[in-house]
Amino acid sequence: MKFAEFHPGQVIEAGPYVLGEEEILAFATRYDPQWFHTDPDAAAEGLFGGLIASGWQTCAIAMRLVADAALAGSESFASPGLRYVKWPNPVRPGDALRLRAEVLSARRSDSKKTLGILEWQWVLFNQHDAVVLDLVATSLFRLNDH
Amino acid sequence: MKFAEFHPGQVIEAGPYVLGEEEILAFATRYDPQWFHTDPDAAAEGLFGGLIASGWQTCAIAMRLVADAALAGSESFASPGLRYVKWPNPVRPGDALRLRAEVLSARRSDSKKTLGILEWQWVLFNQHDAVVLDLVATSLFRLNDH
Repeated sequence: MKFAEFHPGQVIEAGPYVLGEEEILAFATRYDPQWFHTDPDAAAEGLFGGLIASGWQTCAIAMRLVADAALAGSESFASPGLRYVKWPNPVRPGDALRLRAEVLSARRSDSKKTLGILEWQWVLFNQHDAVVLDLVATSLFRLNDH
Repeated sequence: MKFAEFHPGQVIEAGPYVLGEEEILAFATRYDPQWFHTDPDAAAEGLFGGLIASGWQTCAIAMRLVADAALAGSESFASPGLRYVKWPNPVRPGDALRLRAEVLSARRSDSKKTLGILEWQWVLFNQHDAVVLDLVATSLFRLNDH
């Protein structure tokens, strides 16, 4: 999509992304080696009754869905950050995650007319329609000067 | 560390984590396949003059440093989310990232005395002392009932 195609209230849906145990373990072993992310046996005895994915992996999956569904072929070049991130429910092996992104605002910078600024909310649901991720991101686009 | 060891104003430092081009490409290919994260040649012609890491990978590296330096052996069991995330500067191949975490608050829940709630700021610097990540996270700890 191009920046000009985004408008407030627009909803973009994508997925599902099915997250297997092997991918959970691979990510967590490298980036988030807490036992409830890396040790299925220990996790089975823990608070969640089984292995759960690192929240950062959940974010990464949302990014992948957004990249494929909305940013491929766009003028996107960076993000300055996120307004907030919430992980209301855990992600478990085999979960099928789907994305609902809603555009909050899309405007050209007042001071730099070639800069497009998109604010959007990304929500990931699991196959039971429980929210597993909720965030608001800003994405920047490099536009032609006209 | 145990939850009882955290106190407001406490600073925990860790790293460096040296991020190579191969790891940048591996992460981005799977989770953030935008050309400035996955194509060194195209990125060389782009706004940043070279490949940059996905911001989500920068977060994941902060998590790894925090897990090793502060959460290993703790009662940590989950996080409900982040107050904000900022990516003020890009991360490039070969950057050596170091973490400075500062405890903002550490308290037991009023309603559930076995729940420890830690709020802390995580800042990652590169080898030029530029900030590449700034966030505030909440971490939850499952404590004994005394």
